[in-house]
Amino acid sequence: MSGVKEKVAVLGAGSWGTALAMVLADNGHEVRLWGHKKELIDEINKTHMNHKYLPNISLPEGIKGFDSLQDALKDLDLIILAVPTKAIREVLKNIIEFQKEPLTIVHVSKGIEPDSLLRITEMIAHEVPKKLQKDIVVLSGPSHAEEVSLRHPTTVTVTSSNMEAANRIQDLFMNQNFRVYTNADVIGVEIGGALKNIIALAAGISDGLGYGDNAKAALITRGLAEIARLGVKMGANPLTFSGLTGIGDLIVTCTSVHSRNWRAGNMLGKGKTLQEVLESMGMVVEGVRTTKAAYQLAKEYNVSMPITEALYNVLFNGDKPKEAVDRLMGRLKTNEMEDLTDILEDQFRE
Amino acid sequence: MSGVKEKVAVLGAGSWGTALAMVLADNGHEVRLWGHKKELIDEINKTHMNHKYLPNISLPEGIKGFDSLQDALKDLDLIILAVPTKAIREVLKNIIEFQKEPLTIVHVSKGIEPDSLLRITEMIAHEVPKKLQKDIVVLSGPSHAEEVSLRHPTTVTVTSSNMEAANRIQDLFMNQNFRVYTNADVIGVEIGGALKNIIALAAGISDGLGYGDNAKAALITRGLAEIARLGVKMGANPLTFSGLTGIGDLIVTCTSVHSRNWRAGNMLGKGKTLQEVLESMGMVVEGVRTTKAAYQLAKEYNVSMPITEALYNVLFNGDKPKEAVDRLMGRLKTNEMEDLTDILEDQFRE
Repeated sequence: MSGVKEKVAVLGAGSWGTALAMVLADNGHEVRLWGHKKELIDEINKTHMNHKYLPNISLPEGIKGFDSLQDALKDLDLIILAVPTKAIREVLKNIIEFQKEPLTIVHVSKGIEPDSLLRITEMIAHEVPKKLQKDIVVLSGPSHAEEVSLRHPTTVTVTSSNMEAANRIQDLFMNQNFRVYTNADVIGVEIGGALKNIIALAAGISDGLGYGDNAKAALITRGLAEIARLGVKMGANPLTFSGLTGIGDLIVTCTSVHSRNWRAGNMLGKGKTLQEVLESMGMVVEGVRTTKAAYQLAKEYNVSMPITEALYNVLFNGDKPKEAVDRLMGRLKTNEMEDLTDILEDQFRE
Repeated sequence: MSGVKEKVAVLGAGSWGTALAMVLADNGHEVRLWGHKKELIDEINKTHMNHKYLPNISLPEGIKGFDSLQDALKDLDLIILAVPTKAIREVLKNIIEFQKEPLTIVHVSKGIEPDSLLRITEMIAHEVPKKLQKDIVVLSGPSHAEEVSLRHPTTVTVTSSNMEAANRIQDLFMNQNFRVYTNADVIGVEIGGALKNIIALAAGISDGLGYGDNAKAALITRGLAEIARLGVKMGANPLTFSGLTGIGDLIVTCTSVHSRNWRAGNMLGKGKTLQEVLESMGMVVEGVRTTKAAYQLAKEYNVSMPITEALYNVLFNGDKPKEAVDRLMGRLKTNEMEDLTDILEDQFRE
């Protein structure tokens, strides 16, 4: 924890935004937590609780709730963007209307925009006028909000095209329970964080079909290989996929019942249709959008992504989950090294 | 599945040996399953069940139980060694007494011998006279025996210094549910398979302390990095650690309640002593031996292995699990890439 106290606005009072606001308040910063639902913000200010998203957790008194975006951003240059990927452009549009000074924007979301195929830092750079862009930083890694709110040990990575900005954000969040590391590979961090949700859906399907840990381990292993293969083609450092935002986040998302994407996959494996799953979840299942985007990216970059493709066909073309998983299990190259080598050879073996 | 039908002896009628015997019998081979307990073998021959190790599973009739090692090996040249690592030398000594013809020995165990610091293929090569060695092959990967016995999808890797022998074993086992891949990196496959048990113990401790998925993901990610660091110094291909016998097996072992090593770590995390844990398990906890061996290897090869070292001090020097895990979580380098790069630079960046 550095000695500098900052003013920060955390935009989005869901579980992740609230948990990150807690870390910042624990570190003594002035924290403004913005949400668009007035009742939720009132509850936060009156009871220091956010029952809907972090039940039974007392929030530090240093967190102040705001339902006006303009008030939340007054006299500060640092925002943490913790709204669902789908809402990012809309929130940024609202900010642009009143904002005069440049902002450092830290996003903590995971996804790829379908059709535009932009990573989230790219979406932000497109949406926010240059004169309002100070820096764009990503915070990502294996981190359930519930565990962060319980102050259990957690490690995350921050990255930015400007490493000084990344270092500022590292100092802002770092404490005994919440360990923050830097990595200069923005593309690798964002691709790993987004695409793990595809593999979590696939792992959920495998579990829903009644298959066991052996099948799931194969899917995770092969899944990481195809994510890395695409990431490297897009310019990522292959090592990033061996780090916290690669393997680390993939493991948590594929093996935890907390994971929304795994739960959605599990229902698909048990025979529900995509529509039934989405209706019964009542919230965004990021992996569904990401599968579509990754399927498009694989075509654009001409990369083989058999798990993504199989999942795309299950989600959007009516393929049966069981047949898709069984086919995948039979499709690995005979020599596993031939397949793994593809990932690294461009990078290291010119 | 190849058309060639072979005679095979599977030595060791525990859960893994029995499950592998089932795969071979499903493929139409003549399978002799040897165990040293006469009652167990009688049960297998009379009831086609192995209640103790695979409850409620019907064994294929093609499996014949043997309690005489010499009878089991008569007129064949191929054995699958599925006894605990500790018993390998003793079983091989018994074979040598009567064996006249060279054997292809496939081992399916995971471990490093403490003090000698030999991998299992090296132990076999030391124990068996040259004239009796045809080939030594390793079969490894993410594979709970229970799931294999239920014919759920499973993927494993075979490796050997003679790839023709590896291909023969691939053909022997390959079928629709049990997918077998080859990899020429014997060292990487054996080191990954052995050392994952150390990380499973550490993950169990973290869970036993009440920490969550975030902490466990960090331990698994950092654990794979230190395994790869040692493996590469010993001559392994770093890519192997991204494959089924690396990440794949590590995930299964660290996240499954089936895993003995995880269970032992969990009890340690809850405050039991090593002696209490070993007594209550009533069976071998391979990770305890492997931690000692890896600690010695890290010194010999001068490689930094913080998780292995911390666990060694918990197991053998009375360190408190909570302090050890908390210290580990605070010890990653500030820039995660510095740490990850160590693994690959020897190999790729000369």
